[in-house]
Amino acid sequence: MSKRPDLEAFFNPSSIAVVGASPKPGSLGRAILDNLLLRYKGKIYPVNPKYQNELGLKWYHSLSEIPETPELVVIAVRADFVPGILREAGEKGSRAAVIISGGFAESGPKGRELQDEAYRIAREYGIRVVGPNCIGVYNALTGVDTFFLPHDRMRRPPRGPIAIISQSGAFLASIMDWAALEGIGIAKAVNFGNKMDVDEVDMLEYFGWDDDIRVILMYIEGVKPGRGRRFIEVAREVTRRKPVILLKGGKTSRGASAAASHTAALAGDHAVFRGALKQARIIESDEILDLFDMGKALAHLRFPRGKRVGIVTNAGGPGVIMVDNLIRYGLDVPEFSPSLQERLKQMFPPRVAVKNPVDLTGDASNEDYEKALTTVVESGEVDIIVVIALMQPPVLTVDLGDLIADIAWKHHEIPFIVVTMGSDIAKKLEERVEGRGIPVYNFPERAARAVYAIAHCSKCG
Amino acid sequence: MSKRPDLEAFFNPSSIAVVGASPKPGSLGRAILDNLLLRYKGKIYPVNPKYQNELGLKWYHSLSEIPETPELVVIAVRADFVPGILREAGEKGSRAAVIISGGFAESGPKGRELQDEAYRIAREYGIRVVGPNCIGVYNALTGVDTFFLPHDRMRRPPRGPIAIISQSGAFLASIMDWAALEGIGIAKAVNFGNKMDVDEVDMLEYFGWDDDIRVILMYIEGVKPGRGRRFIEVAREVTRRKPVILLKGGKTSRGASAAASHTAALAGDHAVFRGALKQARIIESDEILDLFDMGKALAHLRFPRGKRVGIVTNAGGPGVIMVDNLIRYGLDVPEFSPSLQERLKQMFPPRVAVKNPVDLTGDASNEDYEKALTTVVESGEVDIIVVIALMQPPVLTVDLGDLIADIAWKHHEIPFIVVTMGSDIAKKLEERVEGRGIPVYNFPERAARAVYAIAHCSKCG
Repeated sequence: MSKRPDLEAFFNPSSIAVVGASPKPGSLGRAILDNLLLRYKGKIYPVNPKYQNELGLKWYHSLSEIPETPELVVIAVRADFVPGILREAGEKGSRAAVIISGGFAESGPKGRELQDEAYRIAREYGIRVVGPNCIGVYNALTGVDTFFLPHDRMRRPPRGPIAIISQSGAFLASIMDWAALEGIGIAKAVNFGNKMDVDEVDMLEYFGWDDDIRVILMYIEGVKPGRGRRFIEVAREVTRRKPVILLKGGKTSRGASAAASHTAALAGDHAVFRGALKQARIIESDEILDLFDMGKALAHLRFPRGKRVGIVTNAGGPGVIMVDNLIRYGLDVPEFSPSLQERLKQMFPPRVAVKNPVDLTGDASNEDYEKALTTVVESGEVDIIVVIALMQPPVLTVDLGDLIADIAWKHHEIPFIVVTMGSDIAKKLEERVEGRGIPVYNFPERAARAVYAIAHCSKCG
Repeated sequence: MSKRPDLEAFFNPSSIAVVGASPKPGSLGRAILDNLLLRYKGKIYPVNPKYQNELGLKWYHSLSEIPETPELVVIAVRADFVPGILREAGEKGSRAAVIISGGFAESGPKGRELQDEAYRIAREYGIRVVGPNCIGVYNALTGVDTFFLPHDRMRRPPRGPIAIISQSGAFLASIMDWAALEGIGIAKAVNFGNKMDVDEVDMLEYFGWDDDIRVILMYIEGVKPGRGRRFIEVAREVTRRKPVILLKGGKTSRGASAAASHTAALAGDHAVFRGALKQARIIESDEILDLFDMGKALAHLRFPRGKRVGIVTNAGGPGVIMVDNLIRYGLDVPEFSPSLQERLKQMFPPRVAVKNPVDLTGDASNEDYEKALTTVVESGEVDIIVVIALMQPPVLTVDLGDLIADIAWKHHEIPFIVVTMGSDIAKKLEERVEGRGIPVYNFPERAARAVYAIAHCSKCG
């Protein structure tokens, strides 16, 4: 059940009208159409008085001519035409519009007036608006895709249980493209630009009750004025259901002034904002990459019962770095009990360190990993397992991936996170392990942040 | 001129004997031989009494049979044979040995005795030793490569002006493999394992006066007991000549205890160590990735005259994040003077922000970048330029790469750093720009650390 039925039409419309559609290659109106034609299964109504039949579709002179009420209206025409189009959409009975067009509040006083006018009309007809000046909405599950970027500019990521809310459109486009490269699964995403109506609070609530979504990632530069308290209220409810990770732009005063130029955000004092995030149990991310590293772990793993981490490695240095970083993020890396150490000692030659990390050294075989992992997992002394497996030493084979996955799935109450570093051979292990739903990171520090995120969530809910 | 002629034979030997060489595919002795045959131009003497002619080489029963004195002896035989081999090498007149073999101090009291014996012999004959229990030395310029990993396990990075000193062998191998993937140029690398003789201080001094090297990257878990003061002395001298970036393993007490298991390092109190690094003007890196992000910038860019950064972007969000991170690392992002802002305003439509960052927005063209960059660079108001160019909006073309490089080379006293995010289209821009010697990063935070590093160095020397 959706908590926000008023926003359903943005993500699951049965029909979409595209006002400003165009058959011209390279145009924005063509890009929107092409992307919808590629994956969207509902009815598409291109609206442009210049055309009648193009790209195998019937074109319409205006919204009013369309034989049904389009559930979603996508608007990509010159700013001064937008209020008129909105009124037409309202008369037609549509209750959701994505205004891609720029030239509103972001462009000066005249644009601000135009935006106010558009807002009044939307309110009058009860139309919810995403935009203006945005790239809009994306739903991999229904094929709704108003991002006007062709696939050769922005690859679409695989489907997965992550939603992204971004105040920056270009940021969202480039991060989607990057997620495609990295194989990070994204279900839905939204960028609302000037957010004249729908904002981060609405979207947080919507995704919070959306069963397709397991993790919500946010990039914002500030909450809409007057919406701070509601943001916290909604976030507190949502974080009881699923993790929310947020990256804030404008944390420093110079950054805040840049944000003011960018989205007119009132970034405010970051210490205050950070306090609010903590209250709302939102995980704050310091960096873009962290947002996704934590998101990937939260999307795929159960939350652990505690924060005791056991490490099995074939490389001492990365093991040491892993420990340092886990401690830095508030995790425990307990020394194993004497009896567990004894069991491990009897299993391996003296070169193997057994205190935690278990350092199997560069001579480790697949079987060594199997023995060590099984013994540590079954000891009951850890809540989370980190496997560091460097594939450069010639003994290991990529079958290690399946072996790790088998043990992880057998003991699914204990989340596994894997670290491997390098190029081709590392990628092979990564594919094998991630293919089985276990997250892999190419540096121990990145994995440490993922461990932090899942451990943080073990206290939620 | 080398400051450490005693270490020359490790990196530039005219001949190498490999004791424990083997023609058996998959063996360690074969891997070492294969790697030397691939790139090393000097004489190679395989030593193994079982063989006479293999792989197109004449094999020797023992070191003593070799018709000349091998400048470098690589030893990869069982630990208990090593003291005898060292003595033979000493008698033969060799003054440098890399002992790959494990089974020494790291494996218990018996191994410790064996190591002490080997050390006594090495001292007796004046042989400098790298190892035991290490992967040894690598020099892309002469083809010396004792890393016993075949190329399909560890790709070799392109040549470049970076040297790496690593206490962890597996770490070094995996990071070399990763550097190959990333196209980061490495000239020389060393891992000394148990460091019974040559240690981080020796290597730092050697690379400090090595003209092939512009930047030294270090991973260490502790300085050899009694060598702390000398380490600081050498580092102070070296950092007058070139930047040194160091990642310390064992910063936390649990990490230090893991380091003790790994390399018997006495990690000590990290606050004290950090103070020493500061004294020595070594840049401390928090994470593995940072080591290379900073290294890449330092390898290719001049050091700026000051720390004022100008930013030109086509994406507001990444611009804001860039500002936040530059401020976090102590850089200045000054608001441009009224006259510079005025000049920019007259050049661009009202949607373009001109305070710094210059936000050209998603509609920016190559020409817009050219105008903005030229104007900002020629203003004299900045010491460093960060260009953020997201290629997802369809207006930009990859020729932007050459355009940025042209401006950067014309104004080479001002270092340029480029950020682009995404997949295929981002990679294309990256190749174009890095091909011209300008570093590119795929996240603003990574670029900010690179800016920090070059600005830090502007105060050196």
